[in-house]
Amino acid sequence: MRNIIIGQSGGPTAVINASLYGIAMEAREQGVHAYGMVNGIEGFLEDHVVNLSDYSRMKDFDLLKTTPAAFLGSCRHKLPEDIDNAVYPILFKKFEDLEIDAVFYIGGNDSMDTVDKLSRAAKQFGSDICFVGVPKTIDNDLPVTDHTPGYGSTAKFVAATVRDIVWDAGVYEHPVVTIIELMGRNAGWVTAASMLARTSYEPNPMLIYLPEEFFDVTDFIRDVKAALKESNSVVVCVSEGIRDNTGRLVCEYEEESVKDQFGHKMLAGCAAVLERIVKRSIGCKCRSIELNLPQRCTSIMISATDSDEAEQAGRFALKNALMNSAETCGKMVIFKRSEGKPYHIDLEMIPVGEVCNKEKLFPEKWIINGNDISTEFLDYVRPLIQGENHIKFENGIPKIMKPVYNKNQSMR
Amino acid sequence: MRNIIIGQSGGPTAVINASLYGIAMEAREQGVHAYGMVNGIEGFLEDHVVNLSDYSRMKDFDLLKTTPAAFLGSCRHKLPEDIDNAVYPILFKKFEDLEIDAVFYIGGNDSMDTVDKLSRAAKQFGSDICFVGVPKTIDNDLPVTDHTPGYGSTAKFVAATVRDIVWDAGVYEHPVVTIIELMGRNAGWVTAASMLARTSYEPNPMLIYLPEEFFDVTDFIRDVKAALKESNSVVVCVSEGIRDNTGRLVCEYEEESVKDQFGHKMLAGCAAVLERIVKRSIGCKCRSIELNLPQRCTSIMISATDSDEAEQAGRFALKNALMNSAETCGKMVIFKRSEGKPYHIDLEMIPVGEVCNKEKLFPEKWIINGNDISTEFLDYVRPLIQGENHIKFENGIPKIMKPVYNKNQSMR
Repeated sequence: MRNIIIGQSGGPTAVINASLYGIAMEAREQGVHAYGMVNGIEGFLEDHVVNLSDYSRMKDFDLLKTTPAAFLGSCRHKLPEDIDNAVYPILFKKFEDLEIDAVFYIGGNDSMDTVDKLSRAAKQFGSDICFVGVPKTIDNDLPVTDHTPGYGSTAKFVAATVRDIVWDAGVYEHPVVTIIELMGRNAGWVTAASMLARTSYEPNPMLIYLPEEFFDVTDFIRDVKAALKESNSVVVCVSEGIRDNTGRLVCEYEEESVKDQFGHKMLAGCAAVLERIVKRSIGCKCRSIELNLPQRCTSIMISATDSDEAEQAGRFALKNALMNSAETCGKMVIFKRSEGKPYHIDLEMIPVGEVCNKEKLFPEKWIINGNDISTEFLDYVRPLIQGENHIKFENGIPKIMKPVYNKNQSMR
Repeated sequence: MRNIIIGQSGGPTAVINASLYGIAMEAREQGVHAYGMVNGIEGFLEDHVVNLSDYSRMKDFDLLKTTPAAFLGSCRHKLPEDIDNAVYPILFKKFEDLEIDAVFYIGGNDSMDTVDKLSRAAKQFGSDICFVGVPKTIDNDLPVTDHTPGYGSTAKFVAATVRDIVWDAGVYEHPVVTIIELMGRNAGWVTAASMLARTSYEPNPMLIYLPEEFFDVTDFIRDVKAALKESNSVVVCVSEGIRDNTGRLVCEYEEESVKDQFGHKMLAGCAAVLERIVKRSIGCKCRSIELNLPQRCTSIMISATDSDEAEQAGRFALKNALMNSAETCGKMVIFKRSEGKPYHIDLEMIPVGEVCNKEKLFPEKWIINGNDISTEFLDYVRPLIQGENHIKFENGIPKIMKPVYNKNQSMR
């Protein structure tokens, strides 16, 4: 193998750079030269390419493992559906000019769509270039794989932050409702992780609403009133994507929503909508909190398990492409969990077509009464948040590696 | 000295419990018995008192130092202005029943008002009970003292979180404006700390607006447009309390605001207001983020300097009350910083009347052009965020001490 190139795509996670580190370090150890696309396939089309091997030889390259955001920059670029589109020959010409044998793309559902299209185009063009997907998404909504790199760190951050908010919200004697809005688009995995904040002596968050079940405002007010009879402080966790039985998003009750390039609605604000409803209907003190971007970009609550697995996913992808290219092309790394304890996963490759543009929703069987989560979910999620990375600090804040983007470094 | 009692009041900070630990441990070491008011003076009026000495003898009592929220619970209770009010004899009767010689109250401006009133009432009644204030507030707005316990940890959290958001927001190639709203009521100290996220190679946050200067929407749009010419990603940090030259809060441009018991306006939402203004006026992608409660309650970014100082403030208060009661009554602990480097503070006591109901605003001389902060501020703030506490983890999240409130334990 002569050269590889790596791209990062979609929203960052706390460990997307750990996967990049895994591929780049494995390449270095195997004597393969690595390039990086700056801003994913979109930047690559504009010839924004860096010499990643220059970085992987640096002494403190392992800082990358605890550096949040996408080191190479990212994009949300959808390639044309039609493989006969003129952009594909242009892309392959660029790959060939750099003598690329394998392309590794780290991303979620939409990014795997890019891997799928490029693989199909390669077949059509009779090209030997191998396209491999490495999963990442905090949403944990990729099918087939037990979970996705990125989810564990978000779950850990959500668990710790919701727990701290629960204690903060409970310091006063007077009734208060605190509504915390969490990410996840159509999937409830991130919101469900708030259950990790609950203890034997603290029932909060007392109510958890996922997008997998219809949300009913009347039921919600009834639930909150009942909870206020048990505790002066009621903490409610809601997913950004909750919608009623007409399919209308709760966040759209007051505001218009916007769609992104992929046609996804950009969600925000259902907690604020519910805050106003609680104030109006119950009249008690109510505060809404949107945890927002820190859920996916924080460098201070990375799960060591998640970070290690993300790195292993990257190394596994490179090793497979090197050893058995024909069996690896057009595939994505997945995690398979062994049954029983202790927690153990094996890595495998599956055709990217089984993953792209599909969503794995939170299982119905783990949702209780539409407002709570089964403890079986705890057995699933707890192993994923274990372990802490040893973060280096500089000037009082976590030291990170300076990303390469915005420098517009070009190789051509 | 027979017995002391300690109360916590106002909004929690990450280190309000470190001060409680300092007083309680110093009391234990000096052989003084300690009670705790549950939910501050409000709970005390309802006889919610715990035997704090029972806790300070526990093996893992030092967990308290990294436990966020108020261990004893809190209140926002304003005592009557009129010292002749019937509530004062009731309170003193309760103190005498418990044979209390000294009362330690950990809080901010409003809580020091409670210390001041009780001290004046003591004089009027000829009581020897000594009331001592221990400062805390993330807002850093208490006069006389160089800074307040709680501010350093919030500044550290803001610095790290804004830095992570800056990198996350910058991963795409397309223009984007990210507006981060920070706490601080009328004072800009917390918002100014966002400047710690800036580096030699990353200009963001490019714009910082504090409440100490009038906010002008036209100037703001001009500033953002100019910043977008320099960088595709512009991060703006704004204080929740920014207001225009008519005195109108920006967060009131779209919504009605509510007042709390002390007559403070409950602020929220100026970033969301500005997001809509940017979208309308500039038309680029814009996202608003309110960092919200985690600024004051997070257990994951406590500054060791802040935590140590908070503990020392508690110990100093107890030692002074014990050694020189007459000189300590009606006073609050302050920090005095030595000139020059290295960073060093001395602890002193000042009459609480010099502090209560007063605000120390961010100095005008450190505000540049209404949208930036002088680097002199960095020399002030950087020592306060140094050092990390060694947090114990349990089940993947920081281990904390179970607060005593909500148990309604009563001694009577």
